[in-house]
Amino acid sequence: MPHSALDLQQDAARLTARLVDFPSESGNEKALADAVQEALSRLPHLSVDRYGNNVVARTDLGRAERVILAGHIDTVPIAENVPSRLDEDGLLWGCGTSDMKAGVAVQLRIAATVPEPNRDLTFVFYDNEEVAAHLNGLGHVAAAHPDWLAGDFAVLLEPSQGQVEGGCQGTLRVRLSMRGIRAHSARGWMGANAIHAAGPVLERLAGYRPRRPVIDGLEYREGLNAVGIEGGVAGNVIPDLCTVTVNFRYAPDRSEQEALEHVREVFAGCDIEEFEVDDSSPGALPGLSHPAARAFLAAVGGEPQPKYGWTDVSRFSALGVPAVNYGPGDPNLAHKRDERVETALITRCEERLRSWLTA
Amino acid sequence: MPHSALDLQQDAARLTARLVDFPSESGNEKALADAVQEALSRLPHLSVDRYGNNVVARTDLGRAERVILAGHIDTVPIAENVPSRLDEDGLLWGCGTSDMKAGVAVQLRIAATVPEPNRDLTFVFYDNEEVAAHLNGLGHVAAAHPDWLAGDFAVLLEPSQGQVEGGCQGTLRVRLSMRGIRAHSARGWMGANAIHAAGPVLERLAGYRPRRPVIDGLEYREGLNAVGIEGGVAGNVIPDLCTVTVNFRYAPDRSEQEALEHVREVFAGCDIEEFEVDDSSPGALPGLSHPAARAFLAAVGGEPQPKYGWTDVSRFSALGVPAVNYGPGDPNLAHKRDERVETALITRCEERLRSWLTA
Repeated sequence: MPHSALDLQQDAARLTARLVDFPSESGNEKALADAVQEALSRLPHLSVDRYGNNVVARTDLGRAERVILAGHIDTVPIAENVPSRLDEDGLLWGCGTSDMKAGVAVQLRIAATVPEPNRDLTFVFYDNEEVAAHLNGLGHVAAAHPDWLAGDFAVLLEPSQGQVEGGCQGTLRVRLSMRGIRAHSARGWMGANAIHAAGPVLERLAGYRPRRPVIDGLEYREGLNAVGIEGGVAGNVIPDLCTVTVNFRYAPDRSEQEALEHVREVFAGCDIEEFEVDDSSPGALPGLSHPAARAFLAAVGGEPQPKYGWTDVSRFSALGVPAVNYGPGDPNLAHKRDERVETALITRCEERLRSWLTA
Repeated sequence: MPHSALDLQQDAARLTARLVDFPSESGNEKALADAVQEALSRLPHLSVDRYGNNVVARTDLGRAERVILAGHIDTVPIAENVPSRLDEDGLLWGCGTSDMKAGVAVQLRIAATVPEPNRDLTFVFYDNEEVAAHLNGLGHVAAAHPDWLAGDFAVLLEPSQGQVEGGCQGTLRVRLSMRGIRAHSARGWMGANAIHAAGPVLERLAGYRPRRPVIDGLEYREGLNAVGIEGGVAGNVIPDLCTVTVNFRYAPDRSEQEALEHVREVFAGCDIEEFEVDDSSPGALPGLSHPAARAFLAAVGGEPQPKYGWTDVSRFSALGVPAVNYGPGDPNLAHKRDERVETALITRCEERLRSWLTA
């Protein structure tokens, strides 16, 4: 076996270590994508496609349902935490261990060891998840080959500490600008202060009472926050512009449009001169009532949780595929210098997926 | 007469043009200071001192009162508006015409043409007024040779459109910082938003009712304004710091310390974690009740006005010398590309000073 090849017969913990030692920072995934494609192509029960550095492999057994197992192969920049290191307590340390080479290892192990699953399977390995949304490989595949992503249910193996996390919040970022009239501060009455005009906006934010709706049994907590404010020309000038950037994280029972209307309503009457949408990504409903999701929940066990962050499950949701996060990593360790994963959790996650797909 | 010499026998308008065509941006005043010193040294009734690029000349006639006529010789950077140009309407255009080569020309004309004034005279020509306060030549002279600035009354020939402007406002700039707890905006409840915490500060500013005290018959208008606000870490982070910079312009019946205490009181209870003085310069009382000032007012005529900006009269005030602004330029044209001065006003200003000093 050449040095660059992946051995899918080794256990998931060893395979995770191998993947971590195969650096693949965002934008530099080609070598790993090559290795994944090569390893999957050796499996006769899969047909393999590639688009850029995204690899998609499928069974085609004519099953009644099709399930997607998806994960990104890139990591944030290495922070002197590669190669990986396994300690005495069974913790594997290194960049990408939790986010999400452990999940990718589970995908590869299922691909290699379940040739006759009870549901047809689609494995998606994609690039550039850790960088700007427009670079995201899953988005590129969805745009160029939406048929590759057809399915009844998707599991994204993002770190969720071995718990099922349903759906995800939507996020909306808006820039609210107040205008004034510039003047020398020694003659302030000649001007109109745009920073003072932002007071009512901050007051509405401070007094905002977020909803906590329950959807498919999961409680979501919304939030509306200023994430930036700027204003000022010079130390002796009444400023004529002040901009507050607000971020609304909303439960997936609101659409993007409804979220926008809500934010407009919150600030109605605040004398905002410009209302500019800076960023908007819809949420994803947990979809836990779908039969495939119910069977999955029964097989993997535990209490499903809401996902507060925004993840790529939203992309599946937009394609009409209910999706959940379920992976062995710890989301709180993602992107940290001391990132690590419990190897026992990798094994358990692999076993539970296998039992669901072979029962 | 060599090319670099100043002819103090030409009228004040021509002398102003000559001074404008002798570029002296802040930091480059040496050649002009040399020329001023040389011209004054040719006048037998004056003794001349120099400190850096600051020139001080005095009569010593044993009069009962001593009056100071002061002006800065530097200008802001030239903006394609040199050499000067006299138009058909008697307007002289160019960098520094109003601020304040016209005033300097009047000083030089009085020095040259009033050898036996009714009050002893001190002429002060100083550098670096248009830049940071610590570079100001008048401040350097005050620190090194305070005796050179002794006197009963001072006239600063800053542009005041031929009106007497009494005293000046004080200015205080303070940075108010609110602290919070950083968190991911998808889990806003884990943090505390420092921008939201600035709401009460903006509310106090918007509701602030400035005083309009009358001092020596002049009405001063105070003002308290935000001149800057900043906060924000990233588009998905609850910010842990927000800083509002406020500028208090206050009437000269408050001391620096009283102004600071007032600002502290205004924001009492606003949950400010840091209160940092960024800049502070005291005001100057108009001193119009002083006998020398009364005689000056009677001679030059017109209704005295309060000075809203901060000027170097404050430095004289700190030395115990009452001071006013009185000069031929237009303060609203200072620092502008289309800066200009009415030559008729230069002549009138010179004549009125002469009649006061020779009556």
